[in-house]
Amino acid sequence: MDHLYYGCAYYDEYMPFDRLEKDIQMMKDANINVIRIAESTWATEEPRCGEFDFSHVERVLKATEKSGIQVIIGTPTYAIPPWLAAMHPEVMADTHRGKNPYGARQLMDITSPIYRYYAERIIRKLMETVQPYSHVIGVQLDNETKHYDTCGPHVQKRFVAYLREKFGTVEALNRAYNLHYWSNAIDAWENFPDVRYTINGSLAAEFEKFQRSLVDEYLAWQADIVRPYLKPDQFITHNFDFEWRGFSFGVQPDVSHDKASRCLTVAGCDIYHPTQDHLTGHEIAFGGDVVRSIKNGQNYLVLETEAQGFPQWVPYPGQLRLQAFSHLANGAASVMYWHWHSIHNSFETYWKGLLSHDFLPNEVYKEAATIGADFKRLSPHLTGLQKKNRAAVLVSNEALSAMKQFPLPDGKTKYNDVVRWLYDTLFSLNVETDILFPSMADKLPSYDLVVVPALYAAPESLLQKLSDYVAEGGCLLASFKTGFTMEDATVYPDQPPHGLTSCFGIGYSLFTVPENVSLTGDDFSLEDDERKASVWMELVTPTTAQVIAHYDHPYWHKYAAVTRNTFEKGTAYYMATMTSPAYARQVLSLALQEAGLWGPEQTLPCTLKKGVNALGHTVRFYLNYSQQPVSVPYAYGAGKELISETTVTPGQTLELAPWGFAVVEENA
Amino acid sequence: MDHLYYGCAYYDEYMPFDRLEKDIQMMKDANINVIRIAESTWATEEPRCGEFDFSHVERVLKATEKSGIQVIIGTPTYAIPPWLAAMHPEVMADTHRGKNPYGARQLMDITSPIYRYYAERIIRKLMETVQPYSHVIGVQLDNETKHYDTCGPHVQKRFVAYLREKFGTVEALNRAYNLHYWSNAIDAWENFPDVRYTINGSLAAEFEKFQRSLVDEYLAWQADIVRPYLKPDQFITHNFDFEWRGFSFGVQPDVSHDKASRCLTVAGCDIYHPTQDHLTGHEIAFGGDVVRSIKNGQNYLVLETEAQGFPQWVPYPGQLRLQAFSHLANGAASVMYWHWHSIHNSFETYWKGLLSHDFLPNEVYKEAATIGADFKRLSPHLTGLQKKNRAAVLVSNEALSAMKQFPLPDGKTKYNDVVRWLYDTLFSLNVETDILFPSMADKLPSYDLVVVPALYAAPESLLQKLSDYVAEGGCLLASFKTGFTMEDATVYPDQPPHGLTSCFGIGYSLFTVPENVSLTGDDFSLEDDERKASVWMELVTPTTAQVIAHYDHPYWHKYAAVTRNTFEKGTAYYMATMTSPAYARQVLSLALQEAGLWGPEQTLPCTLKKGVNALGHTVRFYLNYSQQPVSVPYAYGAGKELISETTVTPGQTLELAPWGFAVVEENA
Amino acid sequence: MDHLYYGCAYYDEYMPFDRLEKDIQMMKDANINVIRIAESTWATEEPRCGEFDFSHVERVLKATEKSGIQVIIGTPTYAIPPWLAAMHPEVMADTHRGKNPYGARQLMDITSPIYRYYAERIIRKLMETVQPYSHVIGVQLDNETKHYDTCGPHVQKRFVAYLREKFGTVEALNRAYNLHYWSNAIDAWENFPDVRYTINGSLAAEFEKFQRSLVDEYLAWQADIVRPYLKPDQFITHNFDFEWRGFSFGVQPDVSHDKASRCLTVAGCDIYHPTQDHLTGHEIAFGGDVVRSIKNGQNYLVLETEAQGFPQWVPYPGQLRLQAFSHLANGAASVMYWHWHSIHNSFETYWKGLLSHDFLPNEVYKEAATIGADFKRLSPHLTGLQKKNRAAVLVSNEALSAMKQFPLPDGKTKYNDVVRWLYDTLFSLNVETDILFPSMADKLPSYDLVVVPALYAAPESLLQKLSDYVAEGGCLLASFKTGFTMEDATVYPDQPPHGLTSCFGIGYSLFTVPENVSLTGDDFSLEDDERKASVWMELVTPTTAQVIAHYDHPYWHKYAAVTRNTFEKGTAYYMATMTSPAYARQVLSLALQEAGLWGPEQTLPCTLKKGVNALGHTVRFYLNYSQQPVSVPYAYGAGKELISETTVTPGQTLELAPWGFAVVEENA
Repeated sequence: MDHLYYGCAYYDEYMPFDRLEKDIQMMKDANINVIRIAESTWATEEPRCGEFDFSHVERVLKATEKSGIQVIIGTPTYAIPPWLAAMHPEVMADTHRGKNPYGARQLMDITSPIYRYYAERIIRKLMETVQPYSHVIGVQLDNETKHYDTCGPHVQKRFVAYLREKFGTVEALNRAYNLHYWSNAIDAWENFPDVRYTINGSLAAEFEKFQRSLVDEYLAWQADIVRPYLKPDQFITHNFDFEWRGFSFGVQPDVSHDKASRCLTVAGCDIYHPTQDHLTGHEIAFGGDVVRSIKNGQNYLVLETEAQGFPQWVPYPGQLRLQAFSHLANGAASVMYWHWHSIHNSFETYWKGLLSHDFLPNEVYKEAATIGADFKRLSPHLTGLQKKNRAAVLVSNEALSAMKQFPLPDGKTKYNDVVRWLYDTLFSLNVETDILFPSMADKLPSYDLVVVPALYAAPESLLQKLSDYVAEGGCLLASFKTGFTMEDATVYPDQPPHGLTSCFGIGYSLFTVPENVSLTGDDFSLEDDERKASVWMELVTPTTAQVIAHYDHPYWHKYAAVTRNTFEKGTAYYMATMTSPAYARQVLSLALQEAGLWGPEQTLPCTLKKGVNALGHTVRFYLNYSQQPVSVPYAYGAGKELISETTVTPGQTLELAPWGFAVVEENA
Repeated sequence: MDHLYYGCAYYDEYMPFDRLEKDIQMMKDANINVIRIAESTWATEEPRCGEFDFSHVERVLKATEKSGIQVIIGTPTYAIPPWLAAMHPEVMADTHRGKNPYGARQLMDITSPIYRYYAERIIRKLMETVQPYSHVIGVQLDNETKHYDTCGPHVQKRFVAYLREKFGTVEALNRAYNLHYWSNAIDAWENFPDVRYTINGSLAAEFEKFQRSLVDEYLAWQADIVRPYLKPDQFITHNFDFEWRGFSFGVQPDVSHDKASRCLTVAGCDIYHPTQDHLTGHEIAFGGDVVRSIKNGQNYLVLETEAQGFPQWVPYPGQLRLQAFSHLANGAASVMYWHWHSIHNSFETYWKGLLSHDFLPNEVYKEAATIGADFKRLSPHLTGLQKKNRAAVLVSNEALSAMKQFPLPDGKTKYNDVVRWLYDTLFSLNVETDILFPSMADKLPSYDLVVVPALYAAPESLLQKLSDYVAEGGCLLASFKTGFTMEDATVYPDQPPHGLTSCFGIGYSLFTVPENVSLTGDDFSLEDDERKASVWMELVTPTTAQVIAHYDHPYWHKYAAVTRNTFEKGTAYYMATMTSPAYARQVLSLALQEAGLWGPEQTLPCTLKKGVNALGHTVRFYLNYSQQPVSVPYAYGAGKELISETTVTPGQTLELAPWGFAVVEENA
Repeated sequence: MDHLYYGCAYYDEYMPFDRLEKDIQMMKDANINVIRIAESTWATEEPRCGEFDFSHVERVLKATEKSGIQVIIGTPTYAIPPWLAAMHPEVMADTHRGKNPYGARQLMDITSPIYRYYAERIIRKLMETVQPYSHVIGVQLDNETKHYDTCGPHVQKRFVAYLREKFGTVEALNRAYNLHYWSNAIDAWENFPDVRYTINGSLAAEFEKFQRSLVDEYLAWQADIVRPYLKPDQFITHNFDFEWRGFSFGVQPDVSHDKASRCLTVAGCDIYHPTQDHLTGHEIAFGGDVVRSIKNGQNYLVLETEAQGFPQWVPYPGQLRLQAFSHLANGAASVMYWHWHSIHNSFETYWKGLLSHDFLPNEVYKEAATIGADFKRLSPHLTGLQKKNRAAVLVSNEALSAMKQFPLPDGKTKYNDVVRWLYDTLFSLNVETDILFPSMADKLPSYDLVVVPALYAAPESLLQKLSDYVAEGGCLLASFKTGFTMEDATVYPDQPPHGLTSCFGIGYSLFTVPENVSLTGDDFSLEDDERKASVWMELVTPTTAQVIAHYDHPYWHKYAAVTRNTFEKGTAYYMATMTSPAYARQVLSLALQEAGLWGPEQTLPCTLKKGVNALGHTVRFYLNYSQQPVSVPYAYGAGKELISETTVTPGQTLELAPWGFAVVEENA
């Protein structure tokens, strides 16, 4: 990708009247140079079974071709037409909640051969239609694909086959998952009970893992269909999304991003996040780090992000710009809004685009136009940004699933809350990170610091790699719950953290829930309310570890809460309880110092991100996620602030407006 | 109706032992002069299919005939007997929640021909039974009829036929409701998906509208059955109810009261409301205003209201009297309690009547007896009260349904909350109002002030009438969300408020959710917490309007929150956000002054209601909904306070006890 | 039972590797002398239909026989194997929520003849297997049996037969339950509607009563199967549980403990309760009182209680000891933990045993070992403790069911909350109680004080016995809601409290919900917030009663809140509203004084429990459920403190550590 992409999703199909020329003109005015079309519009493209109508697609392709806007084609398969559900009711997925009715998108069974038959046909027809257009830069497979909890009879038969392949005999399965408990032991594969109702956490977690593998297979199947139609410079991407908590929060429970992305040439995602007083940059960074990391640092596509979005997300003046440059700062190759206009009815009427329902050039559109102009002007300087991060966060779909089966006692704190607790603290310390999945564990040695939130379920091999990482000189920081169960959620029958007791120099047999428990014994200057232990506490006894903090409690005071251990050539920190962000910041600061990652930028009054652009120059983004103006010392080589086009010299001060930013390209 | 009706529902069928003579005597002692019988007792009247037993009905008719108590007959059809459900399970309605089981009332499908067959038979048998009794003053059709969300296959077939009639082709439908979105476009009428699961808000709102029309048809069908049995002086009524929030709160979502009442000769309703410290008179007034207005000001029947009601509603001494006279003050022709005694088991055991389960003359009964005596004595002075209100509130079932599909972001504030926010404020200003539905919009010119809460969905024609109303000199006050979508919940593709931008002299493209936003710039003396904007805020730019208040916020301060515009001969106020009641009171006060409706009574320390009685005299009700005694100046012509039978002279002071009231009839 | 039993549940079936010898050794080290095995492991014992494998049972029997540990055998029937559900899907219970899927335990239909057939077969095979082992001391039938809401067609047919037997004709039924209400009257038995959806509270409550009777029949059926295999010294028990609110809270709604226990030779139960800062002893006492009382004071088995339990229950040092001796103080013959080890997966992974998943001797295990040693040493002194309580609490499953149908208006306070409100207050006053069910009402005269919480539903005969109890000199204290309905939830059609108006010297017709209501007029020294009336208030008018407190409220002040009445030879207190525990303590103190039950121990700073041991000596337990040390005067005859083996003399002071206790055996 040789220039920055700035764009949006465009739905000619949804327009209340013909707007195409006017819209193209308004896009050109805003320097929008790419749009994404066609996804989710199967019923328009095939209004009756076998009757195809790509007129909307073609007229948009023609208009964009003429005007020089490039296009990403989305296959339309994530929403099926009513006629398909009417002809073949069996394509609707059976789930834990029963058979899906037709209505919303993403309710079909992605493993259904019937669905696959019709989906392949429409994909091929669409590909044939768009193949002649050279301004199509790539294809997005489906959209936000997940397994949608498909678990009908044939999916379960595949799962039983998978278990038989894995275990050989029912006796081996019974033993592995302790199905003897509550008389769940299976007598024969053909009597396998409906897995939806199992109370066996291992079995349930294994089924979720199996369901995630269906997504890998599905996307690869679409990629195989699409690939023959493409020229070498046309990419295949997908729009990954994240755990949804009203916004893009954390690791996607229903997809293994590392595995599902293998069939893609470029990774893409959507990132939605709070704005106004709640804009922090955290989600933009987290989502970007995941999608950049699964493709080994390659620049990724932000295929969707909000323009106005929900009513509560209408950006303050300046925020849309800050958001756009935040994506670039993180390694994005594109910023594309969902969506151009605001839809006048149906379901997402209040998920607003750049334009409101009135199609007038509003304040948000006007600010977007300034971004478009800047992107155009700065494209040579901001394209192809490469990062070389020295810290990584290890996340795991298996740990997430296992902790869903065995939730923390407060019923609120999930796996991703633990991830975000540590991730956000790193962010606040201006530590840029890669995200590692277990499949990427061989990369561990390339980092100076590895942070491991709640790696509850992990195979022996992964724990061994973590131990080796420290032994060979790495700095590791892990939280409570790490190393408690095998990958299949079976608790290791020895002292936790399993396989890491030497590495951390600790062990524990008891754990409880903190009630009026604080941390004490450390050297940190913190307020009382920043010292509270919450959610979970392991009653840790150090063996070789140094105790950084213990519990302030009449009975638990003898146990350690935070420890540091020297293990062979490296160091390992363990946090046995959940703390305030302020407390975690203190512990992570120690680890950063240990790892040689401590510098002045860790305490800057703004966010700092950096990379090396295609010209080989270092580019630094100073991002002010706050309503106060800040002054930031510039401590690097002479260069140019790209937005203002002013010279920057070492030692000078950068002034950032509220929700403002600066981008400095070093001369060297 | 030539005298006041005071009464209750009476269920001889539910008595644990024969109480009839004793009950009649106790009623006579309390001057109860009407009872309602027979509704909901189908299983008693037809204990086995085709076997009829009206002995309970007849013995009550005979006993009342002898004692001079009049009777309203309710058709028993809103609760079906078990044998009907056992013989014909298909009479139970299919709903969004699935097929109803037999058990509660109101679970059958009111469109079922089978249900209709048996219902017609029992109605005719009942009518034959009661026809000889001349002290039967009228018939109530069914009870609290709603559509009960009936949406089984045959209802959906009728709905598809209705859509085909309306749109002609599926293509026209697809375009009108943008079914292209998420691939929902229909290929053929016979493949129309189950409408229960649609995610298309327009389609869902249209279906609700269609369901409401089923109620119109059903009541008209019952009226046609009953009518031939009646003499000219016997009325046909129905017991309408309101949106239920544990009490009668607002516009009934499942019935269009304006349309469903067309088959009636007299409108009736039930009104249940909080008491004790929470008695405000609001519900009595709102419900009464609706039911009086749909029959053009005709006196209406309060067919049910609470005596003791729920445990938390046991009235304080004096409250039962205040409530009864509040109904009269509002134009009611009757006050009837649900119910006489308290039922000893089944379901509504704790919805208590005048008598408790012990049948003893308790404090509530004793207070009722004083009301009965007063009603009897004052009947000539309080019968046939006519009102000529100068203000109206425009409400809309279509707006309500559309806002159910596209709810306000807080998830709590519904259409009726906006209605009640403005209605209650008018009440607090002693502004008596009529309630207009869109079908009654031709009456707009007869009002000096029209208040329009959240008219979210409205056809072009209705918005034009509002604009014309102002152009011709009216004073209009509308809230946020007005004029946003067409009647079918499709957003108008131009600047909102659609069709009213000139009238209000404003426009907006952006809206958001207020967070720490206050109103400022006005002349109102208010506390900080009364200045908060809440729920929703439109970022309004005035064109010709004067800004009364704008937003106090770092970024939104440039937008208007409350505006006033002179449009041709009239004036239009717009409130772009939800405010405190105190703030709304200030804005409404301005509008009242503008409309020439401002006078001393707007700031009286009590509620004032008035009308002209059958004798042509003006009667004023001074109602003290508070636990403090108040002194109120009497500012009208000489007359008589009817309760105390004392002379009242202009300029004197009326003393109202806590929860007390005075009724002054002018001599003139 | 000639010695104390100390033990746990043991599941060889669930072990991740062979631990048996090591476990036995660790048990012996801890002086564990009994384990419970085999319950819930049907699928292991019969891995395929008709193929039996008792190897786990036998190897444990052999190992324990050798080591001198005794064994309780549990029949495995409360969890069925998958093959049974696969072969016979009809064994899964139909409930109010629909047909149960296979998965968890306790989802089958205990009335199914198919289930019974296979259950009998496995029970007999198991009995044959264990019969040779003389160290088997008894058999536990099933586990925590309840009716599991079984209500499929055949259960409902039995219920209709039961109603026909009870009422004879549908007309009698219609009249008794007022099925005329809302047209629910039945025309014929064969048209009886699905009882799950009835809105008739009497019918629903009767069905619950019928469902409870299924448990009686089921346990008796198992007892009949097991009995022939047993020697006279082998007991038959059952593990009863209690209403579950995250711990053992109150009367079990789904079992009549008094009736279901008739087939047992020894009663047993499980008791789970909060610990750490929330350990109060209340649940240990309540559960124990129930199970001791239903077998006429016989020592009972605590078959399950927590060791570590949930994470939040990990005991503070000393608490496990306090808990164990609390059970003994209450009359328990055993303390058995659920369970030995912590299960490594499936469902109850975080319900931890004595050992953690790592099998190491942790702090909890070590404390258990001190208990085992003490139990062994003190067995002669603490075995066979007999109590002669002078106070009783009357509880009722019928009242519980009726109040479930007609809940208190706050939606939170249930029958058991009222029970525990008064029970816990008695506990705080060191009044040991027996628990009476209505079937045990003939025992009333043997008590000096009878406390009756919310006896909402009661037959005439029971109310008469309460009245007679007072007339003959008893002291009765009852709360609001007592004597309101017949046993079938039909309100008595005369003044409440029905049948007791003379006894209490009061009556009322009105009741309401207290809002800002306090109690006043009494002599109690209490803070304002301890004077609040809550949940419910009856507006009581005394006839002969003395008013202890009335309501502090502008309108309700004339009514009584708490009364005392002399009725013939006795006294009766009535509490017409729910109060704070502090207030209830004051009222109960008056009643205790009246009943001659007031002494210095009522105000001790610790809990005191007592009994007479098998040697005929009085043993007193001083239990300190608090984190503060307390000094307690010893006011009885000379004796020995058994734990410290020190002499105790009258008038001396006992020093109790935090969560500590003392056990004094009198010499006499």
